[in-house]
Amino acid sequence: MEIYFDNAATTPLSSRAAKAYIETADLYPGNPSSIHRLGRKAKEELERRRCHIASLLGVNERNLIFTSGATESISLFFSSLLWMEKGTIVVSRIEHEAVTSWMTYLKKIGWNIVKIKAKGGFVSPEELYSSLTPDTKVVAVMAVNNVTGAIEDTKSLVECVRRYEKENGRKILFFSDSVQALGKTGLDLKGSDVDGASFSAHKINGPRGVGLLYAKNPEMIRPIASAGGQESGHRGGTENLPGVAAFDEALTEWMENREKDEKRIGEYNKMLRESLSKLGLEIISPKSASPYILSVISPLPSEVFTRMLMDKGFCVSSGSACSNNAKGKSEGILEAMGIRNEKAKRAIRISMGRDTKEEDIISLCKAFGELING
Amino acid sequence: MEIYFDNAATTPLSSRAAKAYIETADLYPGNPSSIHRLGRKAKEELERRRCHIASLLGVNERNLIFTSGATESISLFFSSLLWMEKGTIVVSRIEHEAVTSWMTYLKKIGWNIVKIKAKGGFVSPEELYSSLTPDTKVVAVMAVNNVTGAIEDTKSLVECVRRYEKENGRKILFFSDSVQALGKTGLDLKGSDVDGASFSAHKINGPRGVGLLYAKNPEMIRPIASAGGQESGHRGGTENLPGVAAFDEALTEWMENREKDEKRIGEYNKMLRESLSKLGLEIISPKSASPYILSVISPLPSEVFTRMLMDKGFCVSSGSACSNNAKGKSEGILEAMGIRNEKAKRAIRISMGRDTKEEDIISLCKAFGELING
Repeated sequence: MEIYFDNAATTPLSSRAAKAYIETADLYPGNPSSIHRLGRKAKEELERRRCHIASLLGVNERNLIFTSGATESISLFFSSLLWMEKGTIVVSRIEHEAVTSWMTYLKKIGWNIVKIKAKGGFVSPEELYSSLTPDTKVVAVMAVNNVTGAIEDTKSLVECVRRYEKENGRKILFFSDSVQALGKTGLDLKGSDVDGASFSAHKINGPRGVGLLYAKNPEMIRPIASAGGQESGHRGGTENLPGVAAFDEALTEWMENREKDEKRIGEYNKMLRESLSKLGLEIISPKSASPYILSVISPLPSEVFTRMLMDKGFCVSSGSACSNNAKGKSEGILEAMGIRNEKAKRAIRISMGRDTKEEDIISLCKAFGELING
Repeated sequence: MEIYFDNAATTPLSSRAAKAYIETADLYPGNPSSIHRLGRKAKEELERRRCHIASLLGVNERNLIFTSGATESISLFFSSLLWMEKGTIVVSRIEHEAVTSWMTYLKKIGWNIVKIKAKGGFVSPEELYSSLTPDTKVVAVMAVNNVTGAIEDTKSLVECVRRYEKENGRKILFFSDSVQALGKTGLDLKGSDVDGASFSAHKINGPRGVGLLYAKNPEMIRPIASAGGQESGHRGGTENLPGVAAFDEALTEWMENREKDEKRIGEYNKMLRESLSKLGLEIISPKSASPYILSVISPLPSEVFTRMLMDKGFCVSSGSACSNNAKGKSEGILEAMGIRNEKAKRAIRISMGRDTKEEDIISLCKAFGELING
């Protein structure tokens, strides 16, 4: 039996979410875009779910667009730029590949890309401010980093941008990839005043293939192709109602238990930090990071140490799951933080979830001890 | 209780597919891109499912890319063009909005778009051939039309394109949106030699939010942003393994019963044609159309007649579900066939599925009779 410490990659579908998926598929078989009774019933349920998710996020339902996952939410935001006048995008060096990989095409068609550092894991508001130019159209800084758990000071970062906007009289869009913040600390869509934010259901025990794009001004969201015109023309494709229902239930469950879980996971995080520090491991996640993510430097190359832990029954990550498809990307994030490449290659990410138990932590600390002390 | 005749819009999730969804979510909780044991187990299952679907479609598994639905499959194919040298796209006038809506952006960035007619619902190989120019890079003609059920002669159309290719020494990509052909007559990926084809799981009792792109040469598929590099770099985003498993089961069920079902539905189609013709309704689906789709001209505007049937407990469509989000698009398809606008506005689409029963047909014919003869 595996003990799972890779919750930042994906989480198991909760039984409540699974139940909602199946019940919704059964009760609402119609296509929400069909005008007959089964279609309208499905549409009503879709809108009821949208309103409920909006209330959980403290925003208006008209600002939420359902997608197939965070990657598509990000794509939908950036594809809207293809219809805009070109300019400069300021993007942090610690973004997920789903954001950074957009820069290649945007650059090809004439956008100017400016990358900013994140010393110690954080983008500094001052540095962001000084990187802005009259030509800046978009700023992208994620909410919570997927490798270190660093919680960016989104509110201050957006404030900087708004100040610059006022001084220059030009609108700048602030995009906040918020996948690792959903249901957790570090998310305040209304309070931080971001223009766009991306979310994924499967990181919080919801289904794969379901995501969300928050858009402060939904009119700015324009896909490359409107296709069937679903989601008020913002995202084509038959609406995944069972998936949305399961997402709603998963998010509800997280929000209901949020404070209690966060306190508990925070204690586990402290236990891990103390225990692994005692073993001489360097902790690279900032002290103020999300309690769910803890990255440390192991004594061996990540792949080797990950495998050794695997042989003891633990699932940890040598970076983000996505980065396994293209070696070295998490290392890039760590290097952007100021960690030397040689060290970055030995990073291990331990990521907890709602299902993580105290005994799992005790076992993991014991396993680390055995591997390090022999 | 509704009697459902809108299976071309969506179909209910089969219990076999639902079971596979839940079991797979339970048995394979890992992220297929994670390198630990749970990740590798999930990856193996994903590849097993890919191989099985490939065998059902008679193609190699390396030619299949999983997506969030047909709309995304289409987008993935056309987004690949953004990296290519610009040229001309020849596209039929009866394509789904998921294809036609791509033309706006492609035109904006310099592609030349040529639209070809489909008299009587069919694109003629001769007309296609005569529309090709040395500059033609892509041809898009769907496999089975979603409004009329017309089965295009894809094999002959591709042959024309190959002949022109030979004469001109330049490669032309043939894209065949094959949503309404999956699991049914009108699909022969290998035999027809298409370069790309799009599929959706929810049209054959699979889950929403799951689709497939077939690519004869997968190397040509390049998304705008590779994101996490999943699907061999062709499609980013965490793989929806439960959805893929459910899709595989749904497709298996269709393929196992294909001939028997098609014969049965063909008989229902004949019953409907005879009964509705006797009532004086004009049948607009070609005789050779897919038995699953039957479009007729009603005596009243589509919306009115659809509602009258709805009041009698029937779900039919006044076009495609997608087109309800942007009025008049199905009418556009009918006009491209040579049907006058005044008539097109009165079209009703009756679409059957595996669950359709003989008594449903009898009831529907009766309801038509009551509405028409008073």
